[in-house]
Amino acid sequence: MKNRAAYMTDLDKMEIRDIEMPKAGAKEVLVELEYVGICGSDVHYFHDGRCGDYKVEGDFMLGHECAGTVVELGEGVENLKVGDKVALEPGITCGQCEFCKTGRYNLCPDVQFLATPPVQGCYENYIAFPENMCFKLPENISTKEGALVEPLSVGMHAANQGDVKLGDSVVILGAGCIGLVTLLACKAHGATDITVVDVIPKRLDYAMKLGATRVINGKEVNAVEEMDKLTGGAGVDKVFETAGSPVTIQQTPYMVKNGGTIVLVGISAQEKIEYNFAKIMAKEAKIESVFRYRNIYPQAIAAIADGMIDVSGIVTHEFDFDDIQEAFDCAINNKDEVVKAVIKIK
Amino acid sequence: MKNRAAYMTDLDKMEIRDIEMPKAGAKEVLVELEYVGICGSDVHYFHDGRCGDYKVEGDFMLGHECAGTVVELGEGVENLKVGDKVALEPGITCGQCEFCKTGRYNLCPDVQFLATPPVQGCYENYIAFPENMCFKLPENISTKEGALVEPLSVGMHAANQGDVKLGDSVVILGAGCIGLVTLLACKAHGATDITVVDVIPKRLDYAMKLGATRVINGKEVNAVEEMDKLTGGAGVDKVFETAGSPVTIQQTPYMVKNGGTIVLVGISAQEKIEYNFAKIMAKEAKIESVFRYRNIYPQAIAAIADGMIDVSGIVTHEFDFDDIQEAFDCAINNKDEVVKAVIKIK
Amino acid sequence: MKNRAAYMTDLDKMEIRDIEMPKAGAKEVLVELEYVGICGSDVHYFHDGRCGDYKVEGDFMLGHECAGTVVELGEGVENLKVGDKVALEPGITCGQCEFCKTGRYNLCPDVQFLATPPVQGCYENYIAFPENMCFKLPENISTKEGALVEPLSVGMHAANQGDVKLGDSVVILGAGCIGLVTLLACKAHGATDITVVDVIPKRLDYAMKLGATRVINGKEVNAVEEMDKLTGGAGVDKVFETAGSPVTIQQTPYMVKNGGTIVLVGISAQEKIEYNFAKIMAKEAKIESVFRYRNIYPQAIAAIADGMIDVSGIVTHEFDFDDIQEAFDCAINNKDEVVKAVIKIK
Amino acid sequence: MKNRAAYMTDLDKMEIRDIEMPKAGAKEVLVELEYVGICGSDVHYFHDGRCGDYKVEGDFMLGHECAGTVVELGEGVENLKVGDKVALEPGITCGQCEFCKTGRYNLCPDVQFLATPPVQGCYENYIAFPENMCFKLPENISTKEGALVEPLSVGMHAANQGDVKLGDSVVILGAGCIGLVTLLACKAHGATDITVVDVIPKRLDYAMKLGATRVINGKEVNAVEEMDKLTGGAGVDKVFETAGSPVTIQQTPYMVKNGGTIVLVGISAQEKIEYNFAKIMAKEAKIESVFRYRNIYPQAIAAIADGMIDVSGIVTHEFDFDDIQEAFDCAINNKDEVVKAVIKIK
Repeated sequence: MKNRAAYMTDLDKMEIRDIEMPKAGAKEVLVELEYVGICGSDVHYFHDGRCGDYKVEGDFMLGHECAGTVVELGEGVENLKVGDKVALEPGITCGQCEFCKTGRYNLCPDVQFLATPPVQGCYENYIAFPENMCFKLPENISTKEGALVEPLSVGMHAANQGDVKLGDSVVILGAGCIGLVTLLACKAHGATDITVVDVIPKRLDYAMKLGATRVINGKEVNAVEEMDKLTGGAGVDKVFETAGSPVTIQQTPYMVKNGGTIVLVGISAQEKIEYNFAKIMAKEAKIESVFRYRNIYPQAIAAIADGMIDVSGIVTHEFDFDDIQEAFDCAINNKDEVVKAVIKIK
Repeated sequence: MKNRAAYMTDLDKMEIRDIEMPKAGAKEVLVELEYVGICGSDVHYFHDGRCGDYKVEGDFMLGHECAGTVVELGEGVENLKVGDKVALEPGITCGQCEFCKTGRYNLCPDVQFLATPPVQGCYENYIAFPENMCFKLPENISTKEGALVEPLSVGMHAANQGDVKLGDSVVILGAGCIGLVTLLACKAHGATDITVVDVIPKRLDYAMKLGATRVINGKEVNAVEEMDKLTGGAGVDKVFETAGSPVTIQQTPYMVKNGGTIVLVGISAQEKIEYNFAKIMAKEAKIESVFRYRNIYPQAIAAIADGMIDVSGIVTHEFDFDDIQEAFDCAINNKDEVVKAVIKIK
Repeated sequence: MKNRAAYMTDLDKMEIRDIEMPKAGAKEVLVELEYVGICGSDVHYFHDGRCGDYKVEGDFMLGHECAGTVVELGEGVENLKVGDKVALEPGITCGQCEFCKTGRYNLCPDVQFLATPPVQGCYENYIAFPENMCFKLPENISTKEGALVEPLSVGMHAANQGDVKLGDSVVILGAGCIGLVTLLACKAHGATDITVVDVIPKRLDYAMKLGATRVINGKEVNAVEEMDKLTGGAGVDKVFETAGSPVTIQQTPYMVKNGGTIVLVGISAQEKIEYNFAKIMAKEAKIESVFRYRNIYPQAIAAIADGMIDVSGIVTHEFDFDDIQEAFDCAINNKDEVVKAVIKIK
Repeated sequence: MKNRAAYMTDLDKMEIRDIEMPKAGAKEVLVELEYVGICGSDVHYFHDGRCGDYKVEGDFMLGHECAGTVVELGEGVENLKVGDKVALEPGITCGQCEFCKTGRYNLCPDVQFLATPPVQGCYENYIAFPENMCFKLPENISTKEGALVEPLSVGMHAANQGDVKLGDSVVILGAGCIGLVTLLACKAHGATDITVVDVIPKRLDYAMKLGATRVINGKEVNAVEEMDKLTGGAGVDKVFETAGSPVTIQQTPYMVKNGGTIVLVGISAQEKIEYNFAKIMAKEAKIESVFRYRNIYPQAIAAIADGMIDVSGIVTHEFDFDDIQEAFDCAINNKDEVVKAVIKIK
């Protein structure tokens, strides 16, 4: 067993090095990673050196969407055994603060989240990780799918925050990776009428393939007017904003139904955005937001195992570990094409 | 246009007579009925002269699970037109009491519910009904399916009361009609592990056909022990009791998980039942109950239209209107065989 | 019995005229009004000829915050009798649309709301009104307090939308009438730490008198920094925006706690407002809004009768019916002084 | 500093011994205890050697309702300092299991709860305890009140489980300690009409003193009939069963309103109880249950500090540490008199 890791050593620069083998501590397992996905945040750190308020300093290991196989058990491990395939939930929380105690551990101020500086990520062969954050994959889920549980969880938390119910009508603004996992999640929650809006035809094709009821190309038609026509002016039950652009954020009050819910999932680079709150109030609409996710892995794994969600459909690119530089270059240069790229570590 | 109606004139006795044609009043539509199902309560009234506290007095028209086509519009009708296929929600409520105002109209003390004495039912060709209780069926739903929206609604309300979520594990006790529609509803709500328990093999076959993860024959094995084995003693998220028998009601505390929910759907003939509340408290479990349903028709129709629910799978018997006596005789004499019988009115 | 009504005949012009005596129809009662409050919307209509999208056309009777005594019963009235003191909930809804059926009748598109054009208001001696919208006042509540149930309901609905709980920390932006009733409601819901922010010292005095934990004069200090200091940077559980000004709306993301809730109550005249949604998302905060209220009258009356809420404390001015012109002039010219003015009709 | 502890050495036998001084470990504080209450469970263990499924083996230290002053800080303590008065939440949970992660840590299977065998209690002078389970008391709360936060929490969790809202009508069956703290909690949640039922006049007096709207002596009148009269047959919003007797548990379906909630708080010694579930279903009522509490201490302390709850009103007896044998004898022999006895440790 030899451990190697890919470090970002400069902007746009990746380097693979030998590193020490980790050891599973108490209540930890040693996992041989097999797949690690590339997240939009990884690309931001790699290309811009930062993502939101977080900045990369020094050599940094990216990667947090991962799955692999348990190869060693630390002391006191009770529920996993060597050979188990597992998906890793990448945020280790304190378990004792106000937010953890009330079940909202995604808001824990002391979270250690993989690949969020200064916490190193997991583009590496082996990682030691707390047992309780390693979720066993049933036989019929591959570790490639396992690595996709992480991005799927964002969509599923969005659907939870929006309380998507059987029979709901939904608009999803943006058909990038997060838009598409939100689509998968909304379908699994029972939404029966899902409109996806984007400006890139290829993405809209993906949306149709993944089960959208219809798509709207926001470059060709006015999406607000189109939704007005489609709903007779009533709007839809739930609007998910996943594009993070000022334009789409501004469209949300016009698309939501009286008493409906808007869920903000996409993060805007622009800090302040002009917004029509009067419209929100006249409709008594609600705006929910999403910060990572919580308590989703068991639900997501059950939905994939059951066949309710086919998450593998979002992977458009796959690279070997040794080609990780190429993988990131591709993600940067082909934004419209890449929905989800994964690194095959083993 | 000629109107005929089937009256129960005595216990176990049905008679079809010509009756006057109804007129659509203000905000009402005249519906030519095409399918009307036979509910367990219809059979009770027919055979026993009563159901719970309600008693049949004099000639009585049964039937409340119905769908048909709009043939005439009363004054002020806005959202329906002649030719529309509609499913009728059979309980007309006051809209103004405390329960109606808070959205729990199924608890309205002034409800007029078809075929609940003294309100006549709808085994007839034509009925005038409030527009707002006639739900338009999309092209891809037949009026036969439309008539099944009513029983399905009970299962869907049960799943709502139990707040069934994506990834939930569920036990359904009883695989009669209500057990099976609860199964359909739980699946549509995203339950990924559903065990159905009954003592009649044929019903368990239906449950498997309609998507149960597994079935347990409660005559052959101890269902509580079996669930204990399956869940490692942890129990399931939600337990639905649809059989209404003391034995199955008594099993519920032993099958539910810590913090889980039991939903009572089946009505027991026996008034008082010995129950282990200490077990409920040690688990901090919750017991929800179901009285008819509310605000389900739009959701149910959307789910059927979408293909999420194939409700037609519960129909085991179909009879012509003129054979309604035979239909009821059959329902009484073949309880184990009949899941759902429907009368083809037109 | 003689009926007189005050009509707004032009901007800033009030005229009292004799009008016909109304008759209580079926399920209606005839109420002799005793007190009718002056709402901010009344003043807007009176002075500007409009409020939001609604415009006054022709002679118009304002007033919708009212209470009086039942003097006649229409046919079929069951729960009220002559002599009962009642508070009138001024929005008559259809009871049959999607919103009414789901208990959100404040969103009913067919609502008939007193003094919202073209529906006439109630600055008059007698009104015939549906029994189910007339809420009986217990002996220990006067009709003056009864008239205040309406504005109080807005604050109580705000507290409901914000799900204010025992022990919550709260900021209320704005200490006008709506800010103050929100304060009363938050206290009754169990909030134990309530900061009220305004720029008018007199209003802050009222806030202290009505039970604020502390007040901040936003002209003297930076309210955001002040709240930061007070909460150690953590923010408060619930932020209520009742001023409707761009500045205060923009402050909300900075004052709310991680996972907290912002409730928009004040309506801004400015349609679009620059807002920091990135902050909202980093905190996974929620924004709720308020459109009128629903199902509040029984709760509000119980809270007043119990002594939990002393709503009479918000009345700063009282006028006789014949002085209604003066009352409105006063409300326009002494905005900072008038929290709530009421007209003594009888 | 010298540490002494009271051990139960046999049934009904208490002995005070010198024990070693504990040391505050990492993230722990050393607390000098000042008050420790006597809980019903303490009395059960003391007199019967067991409580529910838990049995005392060997010498055992009882006591878990406690408060004191921080006298030493372990490594890494951040939020407390020497001299802080604190109330201790006596259940230390794992923070990492499914129940902890979802905010329902009271259901954690690995909880270490003081004075629940084999975990020792806290009738002692000094205890080392995790910082995050020590809740700082503000200046205006004494450590005697601090020790009462524990029993109060049960009532407050009951009110939370019952979702008691402003204006609710409530029945509380049983006016022992738990019934009375439930009363305090319901009042603080805004219940405006609270009927307390018991058979012991002294307890009913306490209930009136602590704010019940009215009391019913279940020995003198039929409580079900009485509630029927009082509510015109409608029942109340929430029924709390705190007596744990079969008779009162059986009364709950008859007292609850349509759509209302029953909360089971009292634990019955009798395992199985005959219950009318048909009544529950006809009313679509819900049954919630209570197992200890979760996330209540901050809320409870805020409510006491605010004056919303005067918890000291439940203390009927106080004993010195050296008189602990007498205290327990008294609790056993004067059940009707003792609502809450506390031991003054320091």
